[in-house]
Amino acid sequence: MARVYETMELTYKAKAPGASEVQVDLTATFCKDGKEIKVKGFYDGDETYKVRFLPEEEGTYTYEVKGLVEDRGSFLTEPADAKHHGVVRAEGTHLRHADGTYITTFGTTVYALAHQDEALTEETFDTLAKGYFNKIRMCLFPKSYEYNKNDPEHYAFFFDDGKEEIEFVDNMRKTMCAKPFDVHHPDYDFWHDFEAKLERLFAMDMQVDLILFHPYDRWGHSHMDQASNLTYLDYVIRRLAAYPNIWWSMANEYDLFHSWKIDQWHEIDEFISKEDSFHHLLSNHNCFQPYDFSREAITHVSLQNRTMCRVAELQKAFGKPVCYDECAYEGNLKESWGNISAKEMTNRFWKVTVTGGYCTHGEVLLDDAIETQEQQDAAVLWWAKGGKLKGQSPERIKFLREVVDSLPGPIDPLLIGLSRMLSLSKEEIQAMSGMLPESMLGFLNSILEMDEKELLYHTVPEASYVGHCGEEAYIFYYGDECCARVRPELPEGKSFTMEVVDAWNMTREIKAHGFKNGDELRLPGHEYMAVIARVEED
Amino acid sequence: MARVYETMELTYKAKAPGASEVQVDLTATFCKDGKEIKVKGFYDGDETYKVRFLPEEEGTYTYEVKGLVEDRGSFLTEPADAKHHGVVRAEGTHLRHADGTYITTFGTTVYALAHQDEALTEETFDTLAKGYFNKIRMCLFPKSYEYNKNDPEHYAFFFDDGKEEIEFVDNMRKTMCAKPFDVHHPDYDFWHDFEAKLERLFAMDMQVDLILFHPYDRWGHSHMDQASNLTYLDYVIRRLAAYPNIWWSMANEYDLFHSWKIDQWHEIDEFISKEDSFHHLLSNHNCFQPYDFSREAITHVSLQNRTMCRVAELQKAFGKPVCYDECAYEGNLKESWGNISAKEMTNRFWKVTVTGGYCTHGEVLLDDAIETQEQQDAAVLWWAKGGKLKGQSPERIKFLREVVDSLPGPIDPLLIGLSRMLSLSKEEIQAMSGMLPESMLGFLNSILEMDEKELLYHTVPEASYVGHCGEEAYIFYYGDECCARVRPELPEGKSFTMEVVDAWNMTREIKAHGFKNGDELRLPGHEYMAVIARVEED
Repeated sequence: MARVYETMELTYKAKAPGASEVQVDLTATFCKDGKEIKVKGFYDGDETYKVRFLPEEEGTYTYEVKGLVEDRGSFLTEPADAKHHGVVRAEGTHLRHADGTYITTFGTTVYALAHQDEALTEETFDTLAKGYFNKIRMCLFPKSYEYNKNDPEHYAFFFDDGKEEIEFVDNMRKTMCAKPFDVHHPDYDFWHDFEAKLERLFAMDMQVDLILFHPYDRWGHSHMDQASNLTYLDYVIRRLAAYPNIWWSMANEYDLFHSWKIDQWHEIDEFISKEDSFHHLLSNHNCFQPYDFSREAITHVSLQNRTMCRVAELQKAFGKPVCYDECAYEGNLKESWGNISAKEMTNRFWKVTVTGGYCTHGEVLLDDAIETQEQQDAAVLWWAKGGKLKGQSPERIKFLREVVDSLPGPIDPLLIGLSRMLSLSKEEIQAMSGMLPESMLGFLNSILEMDEKELLYHTVPEASYVGHCGEEAYIFYYGDECCARVRPELPEGKSFTMEVVDAWNMTREIKAHGFKNGDELRLPGHEYMAVIARVEED
Repeated sequence: MARVYETMELTYKAKAPGASEVQVDLTATFCKDGKEIKVKGFYDGDETYKVRFLPEEEGTYTYEVKGLVEDRGSFLTEPADAKHHGVVRAEGTHLRHADGTYITTFGTTVYALAHQDEALTEETFDTLAKGYFNKIRMCLFPKSYEYNKNDPEHYAFFFDDGKEEIEFVDNMRKTMCAKPFDVHHPDYDFWHDFEAKLERLFAMDMQVDLILFHPYDRWGHSHMDQASNLTYLDYVIRRLAAYPNIWWSMANEYDLFHSWKIDQWHEIDEFISKEDSFHHLLSNHNCFQPYDFSREAITHVSLQNRTMCRVAELQKAFGKPVCYDECAYEGNLKESWGNISAKEMTNRFWKVTVTGGYCTHGEVLLDDAIETQEQQDAAVLWWAKGGKLKGQSPERIKFLREVVDSLPGPIDPLLIGLSRMLSLSKEEIQAMSGMLPESMLGFLNSILEMDEKELLYHTVPEASYVGHCGEEAYIFYYGDECCARVRPELPEGKSFTMEVVDAWNMTREIKAHGFKNGDELRLPGHEYMAVIARVEED
């Protein structure tokens, strides 16, 4: 028996495979109402083979297993548990579960969650259980970077002792030597442990943006040949694609793989897209130049960037959901990626979320007591290892989740003021000039004469952060602006109930009924204020 | 008798001029050591003509006056008063008085200072006397804009009652009708009053960035024909060019003069440059597209922009000093140009100043008690009318002045980290790759592959704000970064005394002696911190 949106598994005992424990001949076809879904099975050690499937419909599925094992049968799939909504996929620029439920993600980052000891891991899960976040970005391979040097207990694959050491230059330009991984010989202890974590995260309703490659590496996983990369991915997909809460993040900072050619990434996105029968979200995260999100296999924008006004622009460019997967972290480090204030972390979440994007958090607060390099390497920073959160943004992010949950539907960006200039071409602006508010028309020609660079320099700090839920609600986030009064631009001829939200102090208050376009609303004159206008029934 | 760096004046009584009281035939040639300086005299009403001159050297000048009045004579010029340093001019990318003294300007904005009643004007001067600022931006023509609607007591010229009313569309796209100004008939009461203010500002050591045209106009001064514009400027220069503290700002937001052609502005910059015998600073201030600062007549960059990391880029582009003359104002208005916090106003001053630029303040704090449009028009906001300052940034700007005064020389920007990418071409970056720190080399290829737009989006929020005074001192401003520890990039082989400055809390403390490159310095982990490294003697 199975349940909609939960992984079902078939297990078989058979002789261990030969040279490759990954490329095993085991396929299964699941069928319901004439619709077939094919998956590949995998070897799990101990003369055990498994086939995993994710049913998305109620009723009876039949299946046929072929290859090393031959089997056929059927099973009844019961309706989904109320708390599970299925795989998250892109629908236009929104994220939506398989059952149609919209999801606004509130991500966090614990890159090396999978590679910490049990005590720390438990602490991390206790923290995650507090419900600040519903998405986590984490790596499959271990991570070697500042503040994060520990070896894991298990690697995904055994090192190939029979081979020569490979020499490679790591991302910090240090020369490293290591025996290569043997991607045909998984370390099953690693995978069992890893899957246990995935299951716990699923039980907590956490989406897992699984980072498949990353350059912070002293073991060589970022320096395998492409055949090995694809073998590794083959195994990942056989094992993990039936997990309902998986997203594929091809890399963290793909553009720091200095020895890789862009074609390799293209081959990888095509491979994953082709092999993954359950069509999980798939993207690739940059350090500098964003990946080409227009590629067919890529389902959404996964961006590292600290210019927070780009949701509408990127939605328009790619027609896909926009995730700001890295926009610097709440922290106190010397590195500029790790020293924004809690207020600014919160601010960035609001800017992205109210314009219809999805944002991701991280925390790097280093204890003042730490002195030596060894202490620093051993430090537990949330962003790398997990543990406890010390910062002040998570509570505010949770508050934002509550605000978003109270909205009548998914958010789309609303282009007002100069923000239009960041998302539309000059031709488009000119064409719509008849629709622009009177107050902007006088400026239009001056703006249209700007060169591209000046236009960016001018409009980015002037961007508005406004979204709407259809015609039911409008949300204005004033961010860094310290307005004591505002006149939110609203549709004519309707009345609105106005809620004032303080993003930092976490207060919400209905301030006006029967509010109309052109009316003035008072605000406290400090940063981080939002106004939600909800249409009143006639 | 005269004094170096102070205006001297010759006065003559003669019959009133004919049709034009501006284009009067009166010239004077001043001569010393074979060097001649020609100026034009002006009619001051009441059958009085004046010639003004600004001596810049000690000793005896001879002069010869020709035209309506004929005269010749000589006068002794005494050494400058210790507190006067002469006209501020550009030398490379720095501002320097005639006597060689460098000046870092700390500007403020009181656009309509010249058009307020006496009581308010006195209050404004009392405020200016507190020494927050050493430069003020103000308009010659009256201003009609939000929060600023009052008619002045006098206009620069009488309206021409004999002519038809002219109709024009003002900057708010309202159609206005007004008798045109008769630029041949100055209202001498206006000019006497205006000059009294200039003299008071000079006595307070304030530079006056005099705005000659602006579009916030219901009287028609921004809709005169070009011949009238030049006649007006002719009069301005005859009267005011000998004031030592004058700068010429051709316009506020020149690009909002929708009916003007760019050639008009070019003709104006050439005209001023040609007519002004004392070579005051001359620039033109934008709303959107900056003016072409590469023009020969233009002495410096006068920028409206809120992207604060552009000093080095603009210095490199134009080889001239860079003034951020508008970067939004401390305030609580609904308009985004008028609602940054005191912290952010202070932050922007620091970002510009430590990178070797010059910044300008404004304040628009509207009282909560104000309800009606009439009350709003009558409100006294510093930025328009003057009065008292209510904000918290002026005190911090004064503190920054003190910090800058303690530095051993003028500041030049120091390009570290990604900031190089904003100021240098990709070719230049590639050429200097051998000089880049090891930590950046790994990223270089990734960065060089970025498209222009992504490069801006990436590097602007990553910009470093660092300057140096030759090889004697280095100043690192961490701005929005909340570092608990830093490793300032310093020259190798030298020892430094490290001063930690809190820009907001206005504290300064020497934290280390014998500090070397690579050493770690502790900071409190919040925003708005600066570190000054001063080379220690061997």
